Amino acid sequence: MKPHMERIGALNAALVLFEWDDSTLAPPMASEQTAGIVGSLSAQLLAESTDSELKELLSEAERRSDLSPKWKAIVKEMNRQQRSLEKIPPEEYRSYRELLARASSIWQKAKKENDYAAFEPVLRQIVEYTRRFAQYRREREENLYDVLLKEYEPDFTCKDLDNFFGLLKKELVPLIRRAKKESEKIDDSFLHRSYDVEEQAKFNRYLAEYVGFDFDRGVILESEHPFTTNLHNKDVRITTHYYENLLESALFSTIHETGHALYEMGVDDDLTLTPVGGGASMGMHESQSRFYENVVGRSRAFWEPIYPRLAEAFPEQLKDVSLDDFIKAINKAVPSLIRTEADELTYSIHILIRYEVERLLMEGQVSLEELPRIWADKYEEYLGVRPTTDSEGILQDIHWAGGSFGYFPSYALGNAIAAQLYFHMRKEMDFDGLLREGKISQITEYLREHIHRFGMTKSSRELLRETTGEDFNPEYYVAYLKEKFE
Amino acid sequence: MKPHMERIGALNAALVLFEWDDSTLAPPMASEQTAGIVGSLSAQLLAESTDSELKELLSEAERRSDLSPKWKAIVKEMNRQQRSLEKIPPEEYRSYRELLARASSIWQKAKKENDYAAFEPVLRQIVEYTRRFAQYRREREENLYDVLLKEYEPDFTCKDLDNFFGLLKKELVPLIRRAKKESEKIDDSFLHRSYDVEEQAKFNRYLAEYVGFDFDRGVILESEHPFTTNLHNKDVRITTHYYENLLESALFSTIHETGHALYEMGVDDDLTLTPVGGGASMGMHESQSRFYENVVGRSRAFWEPIYPRLAEAFPEQLKDVSLDDFIKAINKAVPSLIRTEADELTYSIHILIRYEVERLLMEGQVSLEELPRIWADKYEEYLGVRPTTDSEGILQDIHWAGGSFGYFPSYALGNAIAAQLYFHMRKEMDFDGLLREGKISQITEYLREHIHRFGMTKSSRELLRETTGEDFNPEYYVAYLKEKFE
Repeated sequence: MKPHMERIGALNAALVLFEWDDSTLAPPMASEQTAGIVGSLSAQLLAESTDSELKELLSEAERRSDLSPKWKAIVKEMNRQQRSLEKIPPEEYRSYRELLARASSIWQKAKKENDYAAFEPVLRQIVEYTRRFAQYRREREENLYDVLLKEYEPDFTCKDLDNFFGLLKKELVPLIRRAKKESEKIDDSFLHRSYDVEEQAKFNRYLAEYVGFDFDRGVILESEHPFTTNLHNKDVRITTHYYENLLESALFSTIHETGHALYEMGVDDDLTLTPVGGGASMGMHESQSRFYENVVGRSRAFWEPIYPRLAEAFPEQLKDVSLDDFIKAINKAVPSLIRTEADELTYSIHILIRYEVERLLMEGQVSLEELPRIWADKYEEYLGVRPTTDSEGILQDIHWAGGSFGYFPSYALGNAIAAQLYFHMRKEMDFDGLLREGKISQITEYLREHIHRFGMTKSSRELLRETTGEDFNPEYYVAYLKEKFE
Repeated sequence: MKPHMERIGALNAALVLFEWDDSTLAPPMASEQTAGIVGSLSAQLLAESTDSELKELLSEAERRSDLSPKWKAIVKEMNRQQRSLEKIPPEEYRSYRELLARASSIWQKAKKENDYAAFEPVLRQIVEYTRRFAQYRREREENLYDVLLKEYEPDFTCKDLDNFFGLLKKELVPLIRRAKKESEKIDDSFLHRSYDVEEQAKFNRYLAEYVGFDFDRGVILESEHPFTTNLHNKDVRITTHYYENLLESALFSTIHETGHALYEMGVDDDLTLTPVGGGASMGMHESQSRFYENVVGRSRAFWEPIYPRLAEAFPEQLKDVSLDDFIKAINKAVPSLIRTEADELTYSIHILIRYEVERLLMEGQVSLEELPRIWADKYEEYLGVRPTTDSEGILQDIHWAGGSFGYFPSYALGNAIAAQLYFHMRKEMDFDGLLREGKISQITEYLREHIHRFGMTKSSRELLRETTGEDFNPEYYVAYLKEKFE
């Protein structure tokens, strides 16, 4: 089985590298021709993954009772991939991957030019492929969205999510209204002063390293939409995005992506190049990024030792800003339009909106033309703000251009998992004390020990139960937000 | 045959991207694990390239008489690759590629630390593989070095090269001695003042664009050793390397690599993603880079319109330097130790030395331990200078770490081809006049029309004959150097 695994892993890695390259470096005119290369590699990956010899080996292995936990997980994951892929006609899969390879630059241009009409035909095709593939894949009367969820959150179904988002809607929408009144009094205008981008880049590099990013095993570049990717645990790459008039944006993108990176860097050497070398689920992955971004990165204790350095990097812009002013400003919770810039309190409502829109799309209950309006209506209903352009509405996220339908809920689950871990960790260690002393590595060590190193050999809820002694429980998340914002 | 061609092309492109990434971006600790990925992709490429169905299709196609010139060239090239690869045991090939994927970072470190002993074991293995593979590949009593040459210069044999280098040795060694006396009087100390690297990067970007590099279809980054690579004609990548105290270095690296890039950008759309989408030969490729670097880039006419801009970028450093001072300095011809920094007159002698060393290595007439001494002796004999460290001697070039034995002669052939093209083009256009008016694009257009667009569908000597009306003739090169340096 190993030779198969290796070939699959290598083709996967090549696709990862092409995607990274496309988002960071590739010249503007390259994508059309490069799409053909990516299409061919994807087709080769599909052929390898659904190879009949491999299929036999896998079903044999599945029946064996003497497999180590590692190999059991590998066989399970490869079987899952195999079964999911073999139902898709190779030619359709290839066209789909070629479409995706072109889509992100079309989306990028459309967003820049506020031109939903330019992206709509591509989006329509991606939605059609996604629905069709989910139909191929579904078992019996399974909900199409549940089929998508399995790719990202094997431990969660729509029913779980409906409950989860139901709780959030009930608890957070009123909390957001109350917090808004207080928050509006906070002056965060200094965050919008002019911050030299080169200087920001320097500080963000320092910040990533401070949080624990290892430049011997990682790279930071810029991209339109910050993301993390990796070839293995010794090559982990993150991007951030600098805005001259939004100091906060790059700071928290950097910390967020560093959280993802620490997860990947923390996977055991023994697992990293195998099919179970990634995170337990996307929600578990997002729990780590959101944990570092918010629980750690928006706390006073975190900034105490390093705020002076930030103030030094921008002596003019921050001369009249105390640490307390800064902490208040980065925790200001006022509903806004852009998910990636959203405060911690409203963030999951952005996700709720996307979850509802995606459900409608997958159920075929909505036409692509109506999408911008539906999007805007939901923002108005839940957050009391309404986008006036598509760039700040329906076009803001890269996910759909990448075919990642069903991914968004992982962000909200990640927030909830992060809060659950945090409540537990506070009992195990002097959390704020460690932050105040700059000892983030001890917090990371705990997470590595309990979560990172296992890769995908344990599921997200399994890890939660083993770490916190309790199944997934979103009440902690609500409690965390109430504690912070009330 | 197309599906085979596409799969092979895509795997090749993935390997190109991994190599580019490794030289420019990848984190220091990545290479060991990434080598496994590259090894697997190479093994897949080998399997695809030697596939038995493809073999049949190719020998069928070879017998057909109705193929277009394009397809005839494709079949010929794929057959060549097939025959060359099928003789190598797959496991050996894979280990070799994995070795190469690790070797460049080992070389880089060894060079930095002046530690030949650290590189020697790797070099030994690469030499062994190279000899063994050449033995597998050779037909009858063919010279091993001739087998290597076929990869880079199918139109040239050792016999041709012996004649060629014989001429150079006879004509250039005495010319170098004579020119040295004059050159030593030239003051080029201002080139070694302190030039801010960021400012250099800005100017070099401008310079590349001025020469014709199209940033919509290309990328420039930095790497230890400047090089050009490409995925297709709309994604061409070059690197350069900045030294604070060597203004000249990045300037001429940038122009050199831009010359390579213009070749790749100029290949017909119809050919670019096929097996004959590259340059006719490495010598023809180097002829283009050396043409832009030297014939164009070291001429007074080229700098006339843009020297003021360089002087503006470095007002302090160049305030007392006239255009004439600058031109003299960049054409100073004094024997030195580093090939990539060598002047135009001595350059091919650096190549001659490498050719002789490689011949010895391939004939097994030399032990790896002796190599630094042999290298130093040859420098002393031909150029009158002797390296005192291995970093400035045997370790200076990346080529052997990349397995490129037999490549070096292409640089010297490139110089000769460039001169031959130049003598011809002077008759066809007002060469200096165009340069003085900044109309480089007209020169590039001529080369595109006669050389670039054909990719590998014509051989290097065929292109030379069709363009200049004459077979390869190194006398032009000697005449060019005499005209310039006497």
